[in-house]
Amino acid sequence: MTVRLDRVHKAQALMREQGWLGIMVMNHDDYRYFLGRDWAQPRAIIPREGAPILICSAGEEPELRDYAHDHGAQYEIKVFAHVGEQMAAVVGAFRGIQHDLDPNPPEGKSKVGMQMWFDTPAFLVDLFRKLNPRLELVPSDPVMDALRVVKEPEEVDLMARAQQVAALGMDRAREMLRPGVTSREVTAEAMCAMMRAGAEGTSTPIYVNFGAYTCMLHGGLSPKPLEEGDLVVINLNPQVEGYCANLSRTFVMGEPDKLQLRLMNAYSEMVAETRRLLRPGVHIRDLDARGKEICTAHGFGDYHIDGISHGIGLRFEETPASTIVRQHRNVKVLDGMALTIGHTVLAVPGIGGVRHEDVYQVTPEGPKILVDYGVEWVVS
Amino acid sequence: MTVRLDRVHKAQALMREQGWLGIMVMNHDDYRYFLGRDWAQPRAIIPREGAPILICSAGEEPELRDYAHDHGAQYEIKVFAHVGEQMAAVVGAFRGIQHDLDPNPPEGKSKVGMQMWFDTPAFLVDLFRKLNPRLELVPSDPVMDALRVVKEPEEVDLMARAQQVAALGMDRAREMLRPGVTSREVTAEAMCAMMRAGAEGTSTPIYVNFGAYTCMLHGGLSPKPLEEGDLVVINLNPQVEGYCANLSRTFVMGEPDKLQLRLMNAYSEMVAETRRLLRPGVHIRDLDARGKEICTAHGFGDYHIDGISHGIGLRFEETPASTIVRQHRNVKVLDGMALTIGHTVLAVPGIGGVRHEDVYQVTPEGPKILVDYGVEWVVS
Repeated sequence: MTVRLDRVHKAQALMREQGWLGIMVMNHDDYRYFLGRDWAQPRAIIPREGAPILICSAGEEPELRDYAHDHGAQYEIKVFAHVGEQMAAVVGAFRGIQHDLDPNPPEGKSKVGMQMWFDTPAFLVDLFRKLNPRLELVPSDPVMDALRVVKEPEEVDLMARAQQVAALGMDRAREMLRPGVTSREVTAEAMCAMMRAGAEGTSTPIYVNFGAYTCMLHGGLSPKPLEEGDLVVINLNPQVEGYCANLSRTFVMGEPDKLQLRLMNAYSEMVAETRRLLRPGVHIRDLDARGKEICTAHGFGDYHIDGISHGIGLRFEETPASTIVRQHRNVKVLDGMALTIGHTVLAVPGIGGVRHEDVYQVTPEGPKILVDYGVEWVVS
Repeated sequence: MTVRLDRVHKAQALMREQGWLGIMVMNHDDYRYFLGRDWAQPRAIIPREGAPILICSAGEEPELRDYAHDHGAQYEIKVFAHVGEQMAAVVGAFRGIQHDLDPNPPEGKSKVGMQMWFDTPAFLVDLFRKLNPRLELVPSDPVMDALRVVKEPEEVDLMARAQQVAALGMDRAREMLRPGVTSREVTAEAMCAMMRAGAEGTSTPIYVNFGAYTCMLHGGLSPKPLEEGDLVVINLNPQVEGYCANLSRTFVMGEPDKLQLRLMNAYSEMVAETRRLLRPGVHIRDLDARGKEICTAHGFGDYHIDGISHGIGLRFEETPASTIVRQHRNVKVLDGMALTIGHTVLAVPGIGGVRHEDVYQVTPEGPKILVDYGVEWVVS
């Protein structure tokens, strides 16, 4: 990846439409999207006009300057001596931008876009507002979603690489499954395999759940070792150059029982049907509605949970992220979006749950799976 | 670890002094501190009186209920069906608490403590404020710091375990150093060793920096393979039951040159002197001031950066975190605090830097190192 002034220019065109002064970047994913690399404390301003402004600590300036220079891009770099002065550096930069671009803003305030997600620290936002009474922060989604929901070919390549890394981790995890193994052991080996294959780390913790713990929506590590007959749900999410994989599989240790078979059949049918329906123009809510019908037909209607699909890219969940942002249920699927299928768990509380998740890119002919890992769920 | 009603009761006594309605927990570390376990989306209310209220999604309720029950603790559990409703569940809970404890708050608003750190998502805080116009959020530090800066013996035990895990990772990383190795390879092997030794993951990414990249304050992965004569800075921070390790070492690949030796001598003297000074009653700023004198005597005064020591525990950096919160420079060290020594890098820009960091507990007789890893910096 390299610095992407083409993306900066697209963002600036959209900002002009919105009338924003700029975008304040305080998250890893937008920083990487524009700059092609991550930074420990990602702080940058993409003004509506002119060169991006990078904010970094004094000790980090030479590396940042070298990087921008090596990639042939001109940036303004503002240095702070101390984390406490970070927002002061930002304020100074925005004063200059406001003076140049928007000296008499409507109602006295200029709008600045900012990503409002889990990664944006509340105390820095509070400080930003306090120090910038003439700026109004608004969610940057109208600009950033327009840029990011449809993936460029090089982004899809990186996502496929991440998904291949996840596949190697899943192979290793599956190989570890035997009665008595702990979820911690499986996790450690899956992590080793993925790091050795080129993962930078994982976007969210690895989940390895056994038995009734497979019901968990988010999961974690099961407290008890694996037992014969247990369901196993494993969720792996390595990152490659910031791009997130998402691979979940359910296994059963030994012969599946009737309920496990019924759950697996219902889930597989729901995934197959979602794959059939996932075309440009469909709404996310329609995918869940059809999934619920299928689960109901299998006698599991009460256990169906919305959220079969979500956007993925430089964030583990990005627009459409309907389980986090309810309004995203109304997002219309676009040609070129990267979406997962299989996010939701179908679980009978106290008994167990199943889930198979893969990453696809939407095409007019249907979703193209990035890495076809297959489903071989019985471990003997 | 187990659920800690004793800590809840201490927090409640301090909240009564502050006149707060309660503490809203939205971060992993406070959640673990009170509940003894982590949760994918940590959301809990510690009211000034009565049982803690845990907020979780419907699919996660059975596990949370089992956990609380197994540990003999009574909690109220509020369930939401959808992430979008999380804050609505919180609002409902606070309405009840306000009605019971503080029906006519001064100036119409009750105060609620909340951790204001990197982990607290701005959009949830905004939503909380919008839905709770009668609540005023204030930083929870006056209560949480009073509880957390001095470590209990079982916390120190877990921190020592984490530091042992880091030591195994450092052994493995050092073993990997040879001309041509990439920082990615070193990172992968260090991570494997730490995961196999019981790490849950790392609190911040592993840093493996070579050559001029050792100047980096935060670091990352060096783009070029290791070369003969390079400095190497490795920073490892595995977590065990949430408790953070912090182990940094500098190595040189082959014979150190004169400047490298001078940097290393200056740094070692600064660390030794900080160990000598670190006693209950000293102020954090005094440690840095003395460090600057030493660096100046070695001819590196211009390159000295404040931040030799910071608090550590369930957060990678916690009070006193003077490189993040300037006022923490005025914190007086207390008997029983857990602090690192060796956080700052001493770097000549464009050339290289050195850094050795370990974790200590403060005692009246001086700082007790949790794991004495030693310094053997020449790799041949």
